[in-house]
Amino acid sequence: MSDYQRISEQLDDVADAREEGRRKMDWAAQHMPILEHVRDEFTADRPFEGERIGMAMHVEAKTAMLVETLAEGGAEVAITGCNPLSTHDDVSAALDSHENITSYAKRGVDDEGYYAAIEAVIGHEPTITVDDGMDLVAAIHEDYPELIETIIGGAEETTTGVHRLRSMDDDGALEYPVFAVNDTPMKRLFDNVHGTGESSLASIAMTTNLSWAGKNVVVAGYGYCGKGVAKKAAGQNANVIVTEVEPRRALEAHMEGYEVMPMAEAAEVGDVFLTTTGNRDVIVDEHFEKMQDGVLLANAGHFDIEIDLEALAERSVDHYEARDGVDAYEMADGRRLNVIAQGRLVNLAAPVSLGHPVEVMDQSFGVQAACVRELVDNGDQYDPGVHDVPDELDTEIAEIKLEAEGVEFDSLTETQREYMDSWDQGT
Amino acid sequence: MSDYQRISEQLDDVADAREEGRRKMDWAAQHMPILEHVRDEFTADRPFEGERIGMAMHVEAKTAMLVETLAEGGAEVAITGCNPLSTHDDVSAALDSHENITSYAKRGVDDEGYYAAIEAVIGHEPTITVDDGMDLVAAIHEDYPELIETIIGGAEETTTGVHRLRSMDDDGALEYPVFAVNDTPMKRLFDNVHGTGESSLASIAMTTNLSWAGKNVVVAGYGYCGKGVAKKAAGQNANVIVTEVEPRRALEAHMEGYEVMPMAEAAEVGDVFLTTTGNRDVIVDEHFEKMQDGVLLANAGHFDIEIDLEALAERSVDHYEARDGVDAYEMADGRRLNVIAQGRLVNLAAPVSLGHPVEVMDQSFGVQAACVRELVDNGDQYDPGVHDVPDELDTEIAEIKLEAEGVEFDSLTETQREYMDSWDQGT
Amino acid sequence: MSDYQRISEQLDDVADAREEGRRKMDWAAQHMPILEHVRDEFTADRPFEGERIGMAMHVEAKTAMLVETLAEGGAEVAITGCNPLSTHDDVSAALDSHENITSYAKRGVDDEGYYAAIEAVIGHEPTITVDDGMDLVAAIHEDYPELIETIIGGAEETTTGVHRLRSMDDDGALEYPVFAVNDTPMKRLFDNVHGTGESSLASIAMTTNLSWAGKNVVVAGYGYCGKGVAKKAAGQNANVIVTEVEPRRALEAHMEGYEVMPMAEAAEVGDVFLTTTGNRDVIVDEHFEKMQDGVLLANAGHFDIEIDLEALAERSVDHYEARDGVDAYEMADGRRLNVIAQGRLVNLAAPVSLGHPVEVMDQSFGVQAACVRELVDNGDQYDPGVHDVPDELDTEIAEIKLEAEGVEFDSLTETQREYMDSWDQGT
Amino acid sequence: MSDYQRISEQLDDVADAREEGRRKMDWAAQHMPILEHVRDEFTADRPFEGERIGMAMHVEAKTAMLVETLAEGGAEVAITGCNPLSTHDDVSAALDSHENITSYAKRGVDDEGYYAAIEAVIGHEPTITVDDGMDLVAAIHEDYPELIETIIGGAEETTTGVHRLRSMDDDGALEYPVFAVNDTPMKRLFDNVHGTGESSLASIAMTTNLSWAGKNVVVAGYGYCGKGVAKKAAGQNANVIVTEVEPRRALEAHMEGYEVMPMAEAAEVGDVFLTTTGNRDVIVDEHFEKMQDGVLLANAGHFDIEIDLEALAERSVDHYEARDGVDAYEMADGRRLNVIAQGRLVNLAAPVSLGHPVEVMDQSFGVQAACVRELVDNGDQYDPGVHDVPDELDTEIAEIKLEAEGVEFDSLTETQREYMDSWDQGT
Repeated sequence: MSDYQRISEQLDDVADAREEGRRKMDWAAQHMPILEHVRDEFTADRPFEGERIGMAMHVEAKTAMLVETLAEGGAEVAITGCNPLSTHDDVSAALDSHENITSYAKRGVDDEGYYAAIEAVIGHEPTITVDDGMDLVAAIHEDYPELIETIIGGAEETTTGVHRLRSMDDDGALEYPVFAVNDTPMKRLFDNVHGTGESSLASIAMTTNLSWAGKNVVVAGYGYCGKGVAKKAAGQNANVIVTEVEPRRALEAHMEGYEVMPMAEAAEVGDVFLTTTGNRDVIVDEHFEKMQDGVLLANAGHFDIEIDLEALAERSVDHYEARDGVDAYEMADGRRLNVIAQGRLVNLAAPVSLGHPVEVMDQSFGVQAACVRELVDNGDQYDPGVHDVPDELDTEIAEIKLEAEGVEFDSLTETQREYMDSWDQGT
Repeated sequence: MSDYQRISEQLDDVADAREEGRRKMDWAAQHMPILEHVRDEFTADRPFEGERIGMAMHVEAKTAMLVETLAEGGAEVAITGCNPLSTHDDVSAALDSHENITSYAKRGVDDEGYYAAIEAVIGHEPTITVDDGMDLVAAIHEDYPELIETIIGGAEETTTGVHRLRSMDDDGALEYPVFAVNDTPMKRLFDNVHGTGESSLASIAMTTNLSWAGKNVVVAGYGYCGKGVAKKAAGQNANVIVTEVEPRRALEAHMEGYEVMPMAEAAEVGDVFLTTTGNRDVIVDEHFEKMQDGVLLANAGHFDIEIDLEALAERSVDHYEARDGVDAYEMADGRRLNVIAQGRLVNLAAPVSLGHPVEVMDQSFGVQAACVRELVDNGDQYDPGVHDVPDELDTEIAEIKLEAEGVEFDSLTETQREYMDSWDQGT
Repeated sequence: MSDYQRISEQLDDVADAREEGRRKMDWAAQHMPILEHVRDEFTADRPFEGERIGMAMHVEAKTAMLVETLAEGGAEVAITGCNPLSTHDDVSAALDSHENITSYAKRGVDDEGYYAAIEAVIGHEPTITVDDGMDLVAAIHEDYPELIETIIGGAEETTTGVHRLRSMDDDGALEYPVFAVNDTPMKRLFDNVHGTGESSLASIAMTTNLSWAGKNVVVAGYGYCGKGVAKKAAGQNANVIVTEVEPRRALEAHMEGYEVMPMAEAAEVGDVFLTTTGNRDVIVDEHFEKMQDGVLLANAGHFDIEIDLEALAERSVDHYEARDGVDAYEMADGRRLNVIAQGRLVNLAAPVSLGHPVEVMDQSFGVQAACVRELVDNGDQYDPGVHDVPDELDTEIAEIKLEAEGVEFDSLTETQREYMDSWDQGT
Repeated sequence: MSDYQRISEQLDDVADAREEGRRKMDWAAQHMPILEHVRDEFTADRPFEGERIGMAMHVEAKTAMLVETLAEGGAEVAITGCNPLSTHDDVSAALDSHENITSYAKRGVDDEGYYAAIEAVIGHEPTITVDDGMDLVAAIHEDYPELIETIIGGAEETTTGVHRLRSMDDDGALEYPVFAVNDTPMKRLFDNVHGTGESSLASIAMTTNLSWAGKNVVVAGYGYCGKGVAKKAAGQNANVIVTEVEPRRALEAHMEGYEVMPMAEAAEVGDVFLTTTGNRDVIVDEHFEKMQDGVLLANAGHFDIEIDLEALAERSVDHYEARDGVDAYEMADGRRLNVIAQGRLVNLAAPVSLGHPVEVMDQSFGVQAACVRELVDNGDQYDPGVHDVPDELDTEIAEIKLEAEGVEFDSLTETQREYMDSWDQGT
């Protein structure tokens, strides 16, 4: 397999990097009460003793807390990044210094390095995979099918990854069970809506120094991410315009009070464009043609294929960095279209970006940790294929969070429970 | 069976009632583009020729448009109310004048009359049932099981009805297929969130002449109805407090920015209390004890069992109508707790109430109509039990609505469709 | 002068009317903690002993509490309505039964009766006038100038009234001091924004049974009333469109996230139109021409001159009551334009309307009461002309309200007060 | 006077700095249509020929566009920073390369350097002063009164500066006319509400990687800045708590739906604290005592005296940089209180901060430019003292902005204008 080096071998000043990485992790830890709770449990129980966990995720301070939590539970963890631009080398180094963790993640690697690192992780012969974009699942199925036999199962973090896993499952091609962490209420509502929504907008604001008030903000896609971006943009006094392809979502956006129109029309009036579809070619050449001078283009979907940058480059007469994280494409008629973070996931890839907020990752990762434990405890009960996260796991994480926030709530009385279970009581 | 009389026999001045009922229906028709579209189709196709449809629903102008739509499709329809206080006699009379429709619905009937009317509907030996609260399904299963053999299926409108049907189904006791219209995205999002939310608040405002701004509004339950009430109350500048028993919903409300607390605590600070749980005994004696002078209590859930009025009456020293639709219960210490619409569904039962807004009922009833047609067209494909509304039906209704509203939206390109269907395209 | 009869002489069953009026007033009293506080003070102090107060206001339960509060303070009060459709005869009768109060207000009087009642009030030779639309001030200046000498001053409730008084003052034509109650922060923010906003929308919803979600709501004018209507409509998930003539207000609306466009353009896309300008001819023939079938037209400004109903009648081929409170004007091409409450102030004149919410009137009337007392106590310090309400009065009312609501707040420390008073402390 | 050196003398690599500064300014210019319009006018008219303008403002890209606009109008401009941490040296260098501009602004200067730079600006003997915090006005009045004779007037940007100028004016100590740019509707609504609101929250989010959803955000002060922060935080799904000392503002916040309470109570429940009062000692020792572990403390008011950091340092047992821009103060009981940007103006002083959004500064600076021109054109019409910006100037800027945004609006018809001017038209 790969002879790709762990991060500690790749850095000049590992000690400094580790210290800085640890400082970042300490900050995250301060605001991750769910993982703190789970970690205490794992440290006591050591449920992962003897397991090898392979991970391909955004390697930064928050994910690091999940990695450590799993390692503290007894697992041997190997990890690499899931996006060449999202790795923090210092956090990677801090993780790599843990005796149970090997980290291959390095910021800015090229395609070859990226896949070499994935292979290096696979080289640890994981019994469990944890993915953010299904890179590990894909590579194992394509190139290392011999490992599948010993794999208990996996967990997948993103909308896009789950979507692709379900296609694979429909084709009968998915050969071990994978939890669709993305599809839990906890993940969708908090991570996608609040996390993506808030951090995408803050990243754009702090990259451009521009304001939302009074702007026409075009949100492509009205799934959970799109809903979050739309809601938070409206909450900053933007006039939100939604584009959709699914009639019920289009109607939902319309009834929320947003304007709904085709992208070809939105292109003419938008000031900022944010893609959240998980699909490709959402903003393309015919749209660039119509846009106003000074518009911002950003992507909050998983891959950098939602905005057709090739077409934009071809159409433009000049192309320069207008600002850190902003590429201006100048048209023959003088219009400048500004692309944020090269069309990559804006809340991760812009220079100032910090990824999802700590608290929402705490919730997502709490579910991830619970799923990994479920695989170890009851993995044999799951057939190959995509599985929803069992409701109890998700609910338990919600309870831990509410307790940490000091929020109390009611419980059903015996009479109420009976009533809910009965059907024969009438008007 | 029953010798209960149709409404035309029960009214003194039928002609006047019919005219007034028709005027109400004309207004509704003006704002129901989906049913208009469906009705045009049904009038052309006559899909229900030979079918008998039994209905127990709120008999007012909007429902009347659904009833007429089904009758225009060739069905013989028999209908009664599903709530003694929600019937409009004039609309009932107008319906009853249609050659294919018999209406037994009369406002303010007592329990005996209520059930006699249901039996009268069943006496028509329906081949299809359409319920709002599963009264017909329950009565048929309990008392007229011999009819089940010829019943193609049913459709149920409400959260509560669907909940009870699912319990019945779990017990293996549901013997014909019923569409859970309530559970469609179209119904939940538009009817429950927007419909219940807006009309409950407007009903309370126009019953009490009070304002929402600055009020502590306690919303019991954070399901779709609760979400709607909370969102619309916040949109009128109330400070929203949510009570819940399910941790994930409690957390969702918390992350939305609402205060979440147990009812025992909310009772002390609330100015207005709105129950939306579908459960019983949500506000009970221990809560009345703590409430402030002048609070409002209302229910937006299906049955009048969410607020324990018996306990309230017992605790109070006096009890009088403070205003049309408002009963004041005076405590020994002088505090007055004001119950709106006797704790019945506030957007239907308050004197000024008009029920759900026309447009949201247009959507719900569009789905109902499509479900009835699906039963006639493909009923044999559905086993006994509760069935989700097929996505195509729901989606089609959304498309009709968008077209009627003049809202255009995108469609997937061939490339995009391929991409969504594939799983082997990477970073 | 006039021999116009007080309400008690005009009604058949005065006793019943009084009882019903009193019941309405009791409800209002329950939610008017400010007036309760002020009334306790006035009852103890009797500051108005020997004064005659003439009033022309909306005679319904809330205003009645102000009238009683003034009467309890020792004044002899004569009152009539300020809008032929807003009077509640029962409340008028209940007031008229108070030994210090004479009420001439009767619902639905014609123009002659309206002005005769105003003259009847003036016949009491008031020493103080309290107006809602400056009818008394205008009539006294035009027809009874001899009374001016003994008038201490007046108070005016509305935007429109104050506007006209200021014009009169600019012309040097206003001959006694009048407090611009409308212009206080208390009045503008709470009454105009929250009061007009909430009650106008609830009145329309409960008159039409229509929903706000997804509607294009055109708000004409972005003053305080317009801001309230826009904000509350957006809070019900409408898509708000604002029309304005003042650039800064137009910009303010734009930066709030609303669409701003000329009425000629808004006419084509609006579903509901609400005028709040205080000006005339805001929606006129050229706009009717462009509107869609089924639109709603309503006015939340003082007079019924914002929508040009004459032009609408002329353009229409038919014209009928589509619903209580809704007149449908049918165009030659079949379009129906629906006018709510005949273009009169919608939160007062629609059949279901109850006027401003009780609590906001409590605040406005608290300021009114304080102004009347200020006139009696310090009237000689005010020259003829329009006067702002002294800040202390307004602030005191806010304090009474906060205390009644149980809201505590901070006060400046000595150090902070000094700091705010100094200018020589630097970076 | 001072021999303080201009920035070009202080930097090692001036050429690089200039280029980078120019790139920043180009970005700002792309989004400042108002200044672009004004600059075109000034370049044509050269209204400031012969004038010397002294400025003390935040020297970054946006302000730079105002400085250039004035210089292009013919003025000789000398400028320094108004906050030791807000200067961008590269922008300062780019400005300094303009033949009509001398810039002394340098980031991170100590107190001595700060005041030396101010003296250097004064050394140019300005005929007009433009301040952000009245440093120039104060220094001139205290130390260089001999210059006052030749000063035409000044303009002041901030709430705090205007407040201090008004105190000075009340004391009869202000000896030349100064426009209160801060007090214009344009400034207050857009800069304070939208600018401070959005940029403060984005700065905190991007400094901490934390989320707003579900947080208790305590906003101290409910003036324009406080309103903006509260509104934008609520728009990110925070639960907003307001503290105030003025009853009407407290009531306004309460009626908006926020919780209002004293700081002593808010301290116990807040997750984030933002001061916006312009006063001192808003969060003090008794509050630190009660705060929860992990809270964030930030200031959005002008000076760093709103949070008592001395008391916090004294109370804490440890104190370290938890993250760039975050100082953690650890209490004896383990609680960590995190201060953002050392309690300085958070949208300027945090490491990632970029100050107010470009567009809102475009509006503020448009008014500034118009005021400077007004001083030159009509300065002799203004007595010494604080002056409101004439409405025409402010309105004109709004019109320029609306035109640039492509927003059209209505204008009064002749009939409407007459109606508004009349008072004698009745019901």
